Amino acid sequence: MEIKSEESRIEGRNAVLEAFRAGRPIDKLFVLDGCQDGSVRSIVREAKKHDTILNFVTKDRLDALSETGRHQGVIAFAAVFEYAEVSDILNKARERGEAPFVFILDGIEDPHNLGAIIRTANLAGAHGVIIPKHRSALLTATVMRASAGALNYTPVAKVTNIVQIMKELKKAGLWFVCGDMGGQSMYSLNLTGPIGLVIGNEGEGVSRLVREECDMIASIPMKGDIDSLNASVAAGVLAYEIVRQRMNA
Amino acid sequence: MEIKSEESRIEGRNAVLEAFRAGRPIDKLFVLDGCQDGSVRSIVREAKKHDTILNFVTKDRLDALSETGRHQGVIAFAAVFEYAEVSDILNKARERGEAPFVFILDGIEDPHNLGAIIRTANLAGAHGVIIPKHRSALLTATVMRASAGALNYTPVAKVTNIVQIMKELKKAGLWFVCGDMGGQSMYSLNLTGPIGLVIGNEGEGVSRLVREECDMIASIPMKGDIDSLNASVAAGVLAYEIVRQRMNA
Repeated sequence: MEIKSEESRIEGRNAVLEAFRAGRPIDKLFVLDGCQDGSVRSIVREAKKHDTILNFVTKDRLDALSETGRHQGVIAFAAVFEYAEVSDILNKARERGEAPFVFILDGIEDPHNLGAIIRTANLAGAHGVIIPKHRSALLTATVMRASAGALNYTPVAKVTNIVQIMKELKKAGLWFVCGDMGGQSMYSLNLTGPIGLVIGNEGEGVSRLVREECDMIASIPMKGDIDSLNASVAAGVLAYEIVRQRMNA
Repeated sequence: MEIKSEESRIEGRNAVLEAFRAGRPIDKLFVLDGCQDGSVRSIVREAKKHDTILNFVTKDRLDALSETGRHQGVIAFAAVFEYAEVSDILNKARERGEAPFVFILDGIEDPHNLGAIIRTANLAGAHGVIIPKHRSALLTATVMRASAGALNYTPVAKVTNIVQIMKELKKAGLWFVCGDMGGQSMYSLNLTGPIGLVIGNEGEGVSRLVREECDMIASIPMKGDIDSLNASVAAGVLAYEIVRQRMNA
């Protein structure tokens, strides 16, 4: 991975098309609804080939999103960083001769939380982070800042279907534990070996299908009056229980 | 503690003076520099009686801070919550029949971090949080939101001198552990018994005098490439090592 740019907004037909062709990772594309112009159709085709979320919107919406005022019907949002592949994450574990330790973020929406979790993943010795393409904060400049540089070291892969990836990683030998209420105390679980730590959305927790794919549900002991920890704090507490057990294993 | 108001800015001489006299907790007061008017002098006297940070500023600064445009030379910032006393925190431990467990925040400046740490303190079963009056985020509406309701349950005391309070709490039997680099692994320390967990400032860590007052320096194992965890994540990881040891004790 390398830094692409602090600026993540790309406006205008040529600029957007060139960005796709240069292989820049475009997270989201906003296109003027109903526009059938040839170059706009080329851009939409590129978006479908790549892993881009497509939004057809009104001219007013585009005008509001525009910084230059000259969007020509298309505005793209590029990731500040290149995304990695899931295989890069497994390779990293292999290179280090370690059992894979992967974070799976099932819809972390706050960029500060996402950055803080990537930071934690790096320091807990995890080999990478997997996020979904939808319903998730993506790799913006805010996330990069909140990661305190961890994005330079820890690969982040963006996938279309978290459940699908978990099934594939199970074939590679990983076990999955999600942090959620109503599970077993994290201290009583065996969290050593190849592991995927699943962290749910800030408000709604882990989604049902992802939870069903987990081998273990780990609960953090709650000795207070409120419901749950901040998502990035919960990720840290669970990650370090994994670190502790790995150190003793 | 009870909710005072979502609005924390109070402008104008009568409003500010009444707020002091009604016992509202005023964190900061901005006064027009050089103003010798009788009612302004009364306000400054009240501020000195209470635990308020006094700032003498230019008219331009006041105008910039003003929402109403009618500040009459004084703008006060009130805490959204009442602060507790340190004795309230010790009483809470006594009521529960537990060894005291207190968070000491040595200059957490980000209100989201402060809120997340109060949330963690609640869920880790701590009896309260102590913050310094200077160089710290105070109890604003943002902190309340980030605490996810924990401020309704966990007392927060604001003190002038952290080192002084630590000396007093030592007489009450507390040991102090701070999270910092260059200490012993947190897993190898005995963190049971009456304990104060000291968390340093986001950028600079624990200040020298506070660190000197600590009995133990606990380090979180760092297995990555960057320097440190987010402050609220570090607080969570350390707090839950204390929880784990207390559960096994």
